[in-house]
Amino acid sequence: MAEKTLNDLFVDTLKDIYFAEKQILKALPKMARAAQSEEGAAGFLIHRDETLAQIKRLEQVFELIAKPARGKTCEAIQGIIAEGEEIMEDYKGSAALDAGLISSAQAVEHYEIARYGTLISWAEHIGLEDAVPLLEANLAEEVATDAKLTKLAEAVANPKNAVSA
Amino acid sequence: MAEKTLNDLFVDTLKDIYFAEKQILKALPKMARAAQSEEGAAGFLIHRDETLAQIKRLEQVFELIAKPARGKTCEAIQGIIAEGEEIMEDYKGSAALDAGLISSAQAVEHYEIARYGTLISWAEHIGLEDAVPLLEANLAEEVATDAKLTKLAEAVANPKNAVSA
Repeated sequence: MAEKTLNDLFVDTLKDIYFAEKQILKALPKMARAAQSEEGAAGFLIHRDETLAQIKRLEQVFELIAKPARGKTCEAIQGIIAEGEEIMEDYKGSAALDAGLISSAQAVEHYEIARYGTLISWAEHIGLEDAVPLLEANLAEEVATDAKLTKLAEAVANPKNAVSA
Repeated sequence: MAEKTLNDLFVDTLKDIYFAEKQILKALPKMARAAQSEEGAAGFLIHRDETLAQIKRLEQVFELIAKPARGKTCEAIQGIIAEGEEIMEDYKGSAALDAGLISSAQAVEHYEIARYGTLISWAEHIGLEDAVPLLEANLAEEVATDAKLTKLAEAVANPKNAVSA
């Protein structure tokens, strides 16, 4: 058996984030339905559309390496999403629900930020230059979403705003 | 039953990150033993010592809210660590092992960055000002560790450096 290389790591991690993005795509509408504030719900739906575009970019990366777009179970995202579902259950109907949902979404964003950062670095090292702008586009969106969520978190944690929502 | 509040979310998330830090404390020596480069091994051990100090700071936050320091199972960190263990197994003995270990460590750091960011914001909103510098100290260390790991990743992904390690 040939020794494993950075190329293998790249493919394994691409499959991992592809699986993760598809799970996130399913989770976001649930979070939007659960959200109490209109801003929160709208934010999750906008990110759902972004996630669809991100999945398409990942499929372009699979094409570049001439491999079928296929996910690989990502226990990390499963755990992060499970914690979000627990918050939805435990905080249902409470004023703190949206703050909890936003915190879960930020844990998701940070997982993606870590993975895209790694994939970009590896793509450069293995000479897969054409993949870099695709992965960078996804990373930039995740960073922007995290920043938007931080602002939204401030708004919903402020009781004055929460009442007016 | 009283309606749940941001205070409850703060306590739940504090328990979540306390559990997570303790799991990380156990995982880091395993990662150090698995690492092929001396730099990688040393990096994981330094971060183990930092993690010990971070756990002490979290215990101070529990004292501030007059609650026993107790963790709550964090499925997110369990998933992230499980993926790291899978890499240790799959890439054992290969030149790509350290790159994989570092990527796992960065996923861990980003989970912590998300959680500390949220806890700091909530501590400010619930008037727990004394907790803020403790949580900010932990956040600053995680951000610095993530930056160090990015540099280390560049070094180990470069075959020239990998040979000299």
